[in-house]
Amino acid sequence: MFMVRQISPQVARSTIISAIEQVGKEIKLAGWVERVRSHGKISFFDLRDRSGTIQIAAFDEEAAQVSSLSVQDVVEIEGEVKARDEKYINPEIETGSVEIRLKKLKVISKAAEMPFDMGGKDLDLELPTLLDFRALTLRHPKIAPIFKVQEVVIDSFRKAMQEKEFTEFQSPVIIPQTAEGGAEVFEVDYFGHKAFLAQSPQFYKQILVGVYERVFTVNKTLRAEPSITTRHLAEVTTLDAEFGFIDSWLDVLLMAEYTIKYILAAVAEKAEKELEVYSASLPKVAESIPRLKLREAQEIIMKRTGRDNRKEPDLTPEDEREISKYALQEKGSDLIFITHYPVEKRPFYTYEDPDDPGYTLSADLIGKGIEWMTGGQRINDPALLTENAKKRGIDIKKSDLYLQAFAYGMPPEGGFSFGSERIVMQILGLSNIREASLFPRDMERVDTRFSKTEK
Amino acid sequence: MFMVRQISPQVARSTIISAIEQVGKEIKLAGWVERVRSHGKISFFDLRDRSGTIQIAAFDEEAAQVSSLSVQDVVEIEGEVKARDEKYINPEIETGSVEIRLKKLKVISKAAEMPFDMGGKDLDLELPTLLDFRALTLRHPKIAPIFKVQEVVIDSFRKAMQEKEFTEFQSPVIIPQTAEGGAEVFEVDYFGHKAFLAQSPQFYKQILVGVYERVFTVNKTLRAEPSITTRHLAEVTTLDAEFGFIDSWLDVLLMAEYTIKYILAAVAEKAEKELEVYSASLPKVAESIPRLKLREAQEIIMKRTGRDNRKEPDLTPEDEREISKYALQEKGSDLIFITHYPVEKRPFYTYEDPDDPGYTLSADLIGKGIEWMTGGQRINDPALLTENAKKRGIDIKKSDLYLQAFAYGMPPEGGFSFGSERIVMQILGLSNIREASLFPRDMERVDTRFSKTEK
Repeated sequence: MFMVRQISPQVARSTIISAIEQVGKEIKLAGWVERVRSHGKISFFDLRDRSGTIQIAAFDEEAAQVSSLSVQDVVEIEGEVKARDEKYINPEIETGSVEIRLKKLKVISKAAEMPFDMGGKDLDLELPTLLDFRALTLRHPKIAPIFKVQEVVIDSFRKAMQEKEFTEFQSPVIIPQTAEGGAEVFEVDYFGHKAFLAQSPQFYKQILVGVYERVFTVNKTLRAEPSITTRHLAEVTTLDAEFGFIDSWLDVLLMAEYTIKYILAAVAEKAEKELEVYSASLPKVAESIPRLKLREAQEIIMKRTGRDNRKEPDLTPEDEREISKYALQEKGSDLIFITHYPVEKRPFYTYEDPDDPGYTLSADLIGKGIEWMTGGQRINDPALLTENAKKRGIDIKKSDLYLQAFAYGMPPEGGFSFGSERIVMQILGLSNIREASLFPRDMERVDTRFSKTEK
Repeated sequence: MFMVRQISPQVARSTIISAIEQVGKEIKLAGWVERVRSHGKISFFDLRDRSGTIQIAAFDEEAAQVSSLSVQDVVEIEGEVKARDEKYINPEIETGSVEIRLKKLKVISKAAEMPFDMGGKDLDLELPTLLDFRALTLRHPKIAPIFKVQEVVIDSFRKAMQEKEFTEFQSPVIIPQTAEGGAEVFEVDYFGHKAFLAQSPQFYKQILVGVYERVFTVNKTLRAEPSITTRHLAEVTTLDAEFGFIDSWLDVLLMAEYTIKYILAAVAEKAEKELEVYSASLPKVAESIPRLKLREAQEIIMKRTGRDNRKEPDLTPEDEREISKYALQEKGSDLIFITHYPVEKRPFYTYEDPDDPGYTLSADLIGKGIEWMTGGQRINDPALLTENAKKRGIDIKKSDLYLQAFAYGMPPEGGFSFGSERIVMQILGLSNIREASLFPRDMERVDTRFSKTEK
C-alpha cells in the first residue's frame, strides 16, 4: 500500500458517473484500474466502479506513481473534475466529456500480475482460459455486460408476468421424481433416500395454477445431459409461467409472444450500452410471430434445401437454423413458433390436438436458429394423466401432490418456459452458451476443469 | 359436466374483483367453488379466482343445481351483478358490497370428495396432513396468503437492492466444494465426479463484487441438517447481498437495516389483506435497530433470567427469544443485531475485529426470537483467506475462482443473507417454518413422507 498524499476520510466517495455533473469540483472516487498509459511526465489510467469508467490524468510526481499501477489494482483517488477540450471528448464512454486531474492516490488492494492482457478492448481468449480465470475475465468490459443483459431479461420477464396478474412462487430444487420421465437427471443422496434435482418446475407450477390461477417462477434447472454442445448446459436459469382458464392453447402462444416482446423491448431500453458493446441489434419480431406445424416446417425445409427430414419427430439443429432463415426472409421475423410436435416426443402431460390426432397442442419458439422456449396446453384430466404416465413407464403415484392438483379441480391450463441463457446468447450473438452463463456447468467443469482437479 | 343453460362462448370472462365496478351488468366469471350453503329454494356459494372471492346467489331451479356443487369444483358462470342491501354487506371480503345473481352455470372440472373440511375459515389440520395434501391445502384462504407475503418479501428485497445500485446475478446450485467447510452438505453424482449443492451463494457473490461492486441474488440454498426443528428446512430461499468499498463493517449493518425496513414497509403496503387474515401486525422496528455484542447480550440474559451462558459461542434458541423480549421491552424493537461472534464460530472468511481480537465484525439480526439474517465484513486479503481456510481444514485451492477474485484486486467488502421463510414465519406468527415453505423439504419428506413411499 502506498499513498501520494493522505486521502481525506471525511470526503464522501462519489460514483464515477456523477463526475459528469461535478465539473470544477474536487471529488473522491474508488474502483478498479482498467488501463494505464504512461508518457513520462504525463500518465493516464481508466478507473471503473459500479456506475461506469472514467479517465484519470496525472502529471509530474503523480504521473510517476500512476505508471506503477497495474490493471485491476483497487484504488481510491481524489482529484478535480475537468471538462475536456472538444477535440479530446471521447464519445465511446459516458464520462467522455470529462476527466479527473489526479491529486491523491491510494492503492487499497494490489492485483497480482495479469495472466493475459486485460487492458484491451476485446478479450481474445480460448473458452477454457476464459472460464479458468472466470473471476478475472468477468471484469472485462466485453464480458461484464453479458450478465447485465441477463439481468434485464430476467427482471423484465418478472415484470411482464406481474402486469398480467401472475403470482411469483419459489419452486424446489430437490424433487422426488423427474417430471418428464427422462434419464437425464441428477441424483442426490438425501438423508439416505434417493432424490433428484429439478429439471424444471413443471409439476409445481401446474399445482400452483390450482392455488393462484396464474403463476411464474425463475429457477436454476439441472439436466445431466451427457453431451457437449455449444447450446447445452447442465445448469440453466429458466423463466417459467403457467396459467389456467385458457380458452384454447393459442392463449398460451399469445402470452408467450407478449412475454418475449416485453423482454426484448426492455433489453432495447435498459441495455442499450451493453448492446452497443456487441454491436448487437435486437431480433426482428413480426407484428404477429409466424407459426408453422412441425410437418409444414419440414416441407418448407425440404423445398429450400432438398433435405428430407419429414419423418423426424423434431427439428434438427440444422433445421432450426434453416427455418429461422425462412422466417426472416419470408416473414420478416427472427422468431417463429413451431407447433404440433408428435405425441411421443412430448412429455406425458402434453395435450393432444383433437383435430390433429397424434400431434400435440405444443410449441417451441425458435429464435435466430435455436430454441428459446417450449410450451403448450396440458392435460387437466387426472385419469388421462395417470394413463399417459403409465404408458411412458413413469410411476406417477410417486408424484401424488401433482395428481392431487388435478383430482381436486383444475381448469384448462397451459404454460411455457424460456431459457434465459439462450435468449442472451442469441441477442448478443455469442457463439457458445457457456459465454452466457456466469459459472457454466457442463460435463467437464464445475468452476475448475475436472482434468485439473484430478491431476 | 352439466349445465343449466349454455354458457356464452362469445362473452369475455371478467375477474371477480372487477364485479364491484359492474353493478347491474351481466358478466361471466370462472374459478373454484369455495363454500356452498343450500337453503331449499335459495343457495349460495363463494367463487374464487386469482383476483378474489365473491358470493353467488341462486334461486329455484338454479339453487337446486348449486346445491350439488362441491368445494373445489371448477366452474364457469354467468349472472347479474347486484348491489347488496346495506345490512347484507360483508366487510370481510373485498367484493362484500355485491353478489352475483346466478343465470348460467357450467362445471369445468369436478373435484374429488374433500378429505377434510376445506370450507371453513380456518384449516385445523395436523402438520403432516397439511403437507400430505399440499396441492389442496395451499388453496385454502388461510394458507394461500402466506406465499403472497413471501412473494412481497422477495420482490421488495430485489427492489431495495436495485434502488441502491446492486446488480442481480444468478448463482449456481452445483458447486465444487462447500463455502463454509461444514459437513451439512448434499452430495451429487455429477457425471461420475463428486459435486455438492450450494449451501449459500457466498463465494459467488464475493467473486462478483470484483465485477459489479454491488450484487444481490435470490436462491434456493440446501443444507443437509440432520435435525428436525420448527425453524430449519433442508431447502430455503435466501436473499443475499454483497458490496465493496465499505468504510467499515457498520456499512453492512446499515445496508441490512435499510433492506429489512424496506421489506417490512412493502409488506405493510402490499400484503395488507394477507396480514389481516392472520391478524398480524408488523414487527416493531426502532428508528435505529439496537445492537449488542454477543457477550453483552449474554450478560443481559444472565441478569434477566439467571441463566449463565456467557461461555457459549452463540445464542441458544432460548437466549434468542429472551434477547428479543429485552429488545422489545427496553428498546421498543422487535429486531436486534447481535454482533461480535467468536472467530471460531464464524466461517473462515469472516473479518476479525482488530479492536476486539478473537471476535468478528459479524452480526445476526434476531427478529421476534429467531435469526432472520447473518452478515458482516469479509477478509479481502488472499493470503489471510488461504491461511484461515487451511486452519479449518478447507482445501481452498479447490475454490480457485474464489481465490482469484481476491488475488486480482478486491476492496474492503461485506454482505448479508436473509432467510425469506423465517421472515414470513415471524411476520405471520406461524409456529413452524414448514408452514412458510410451499413444498418444505426436511429429513422426513420430499413432497411425500418417506415412510409412505417406502411402505
